Amino acid sequence: MSQRDFRELLQARWDEGKFVCVGLDSELGKIPKSVRMNDDVRTTIYGFNASIVSQTKDLVCAYKINIAFYEAHGVEGIEALRGTIVDIHSKAPYVPVILDAKRADIGNTNAGYVQMAFDYLGVDAITVHPYLGQEALQPFLDRADKGIFVLCRTSNPGAGEFQDLKIHTDRVIGEVPLYQYVASRVANWWNKNNNCGLVVGATYPDELRQVRRIVGDMPILIPGIGAQGGDLEK
Amino acid sequence: MSQRDFRELLQARWDEGKFVCVGLDSELGKIPKSVRMNDDVRTTIYGFNASIVSQTKDLVCAYKINIAFYEAHGVEGIEALRGTIVDIHSKAPYVPVILDAKRADIGNTNAGYVQMAFDYLGVDAITVHPYLGQEALQPFLDRADKGIFVLCRTSNPGAGEFQDLKIHTDRVIGEVPLYQYVASRVANWWNKNNNCGLVVGATYPDELRQVRRIVGDMPILIPGIGAQGGDLEK
Repeated sequence: MSQRDFRELLQARWDEGKFVCVGLDSELGKIPKSVRMNDDVRTTIYGFNASIVSQTKDLVCAYKINIAFYEAHGVEGIEALRGTIVDIHSKAPYVPVILDAKRADIGNTNAGYVQMAFDYLGVDAITVHPYLGQEALQPFLDRADKGIFVLCRTSNPGAGEFQDLKIHTDRVIGEVPLYQYVASRVANWWNKNNNCGLVVGATYPDELRQVRRIVGDMPILIPGIGAQGGDLEK
Repeated sequence: MSQRDFRELLQARWDEGKFVCVGLDSELGKIPKSVRMNDDVRTTIYGFNASIVSQTKDLVCAYKINIAFYEAHGVEGIEALRGTIVDIHSKAPYVPVILDAKRADIGNTNAGYVQMAFDYLGVDAITVHPYLGQEALQPFLDRADKGIFVLCRTSNPGAGEFQDLKIHTDRVIGEVPLYQYVASRVANWWNKNNNCGLVVGATYPDELRQVRRIVGDMPILIPGIGAQGGDLEK
């Protein structure tokens, strides 16, 4: 492998039987005082993450970092985030990093988010909203070496407000819930570079089965095990 | 007015006959060399924006800042963004600032984005994606003093891939395109604090008329005049 490629990194972890993605969604207020070195946001979050990475790096298929917890602290949070990503690349260059940023804007504006995620932060994959369509998301999709995870059926209790709407289509697939239509569009149209994935919450195992049926072996990021009530066995 | 309230600030500008929102979407590469003080990202972007603000502050109803152009430059870009917002508040405290960030995550995670936008950056309004539903977006909607602009019919050429899908609903409104259903949900259910708005591209004047019919006098942010080909007269 001449340079980092998300799918190759992920496949290598899968081949080792590693399928668990660990989230580094570190809320400052929930980090125990006993493990804090000081009151500095950067060193506290960075240090907490570094200890998790050291203990889990040979067990995981990927790390997922939700940028919202870092942006909350402005520039200091972004520095902690960037430090954590450098730390992961240094300790475990074989583990891909997914930025859970849920971005999506119109075409040329996405170039800014692409630069932020892939060049400035150096992550291997990102999560995006589907609402603006493939044409808008092309700057993400064009990055063949990166993973683009499209929100499909999210893990929150109210996810169905739009995602479960029955939609009419003249195509052969007939009438389906919106989330299944998103899944089929991504699998059949957006995935020209074989770099797409989907996000489907573990809190909805039936919907997850439906999506898996539609997209074959495309990677599915499945948040919601644990605090959100999702069940790994299901 | 005891503290800043987005709707009051906006209404005051409307009462003065000001309806144009100026975008400060400053791409570093497009800033003319002749107005650059030096090669520093922060001072170049900040200085360029500051000159626009000085010249337009008494003509506009709001400033809209797309954060993607700033995030592209990492911490330096965020510092330029924060400086620009401080500059606007200082020169024109009567002009509200809309952060075009197109955020949206599940419930508790949005608290991080709320903190970033309203507390750290100090903006008066934000744009959000609708896909996760009202329940997920409640941390934004709960901020009654802020404006929450929900993406409805976006200005990009491929906006219709999902937004124009005909959806079935058992409700009295019958079968409608998804973007109109989003408009009706926001107007009739999400807007308990009278702090919601919608984003509808100027590139789609017919859809804009439909949305206006659905939402009454709710604020609509209409990007796309100029470079994207939207026509102000239409």
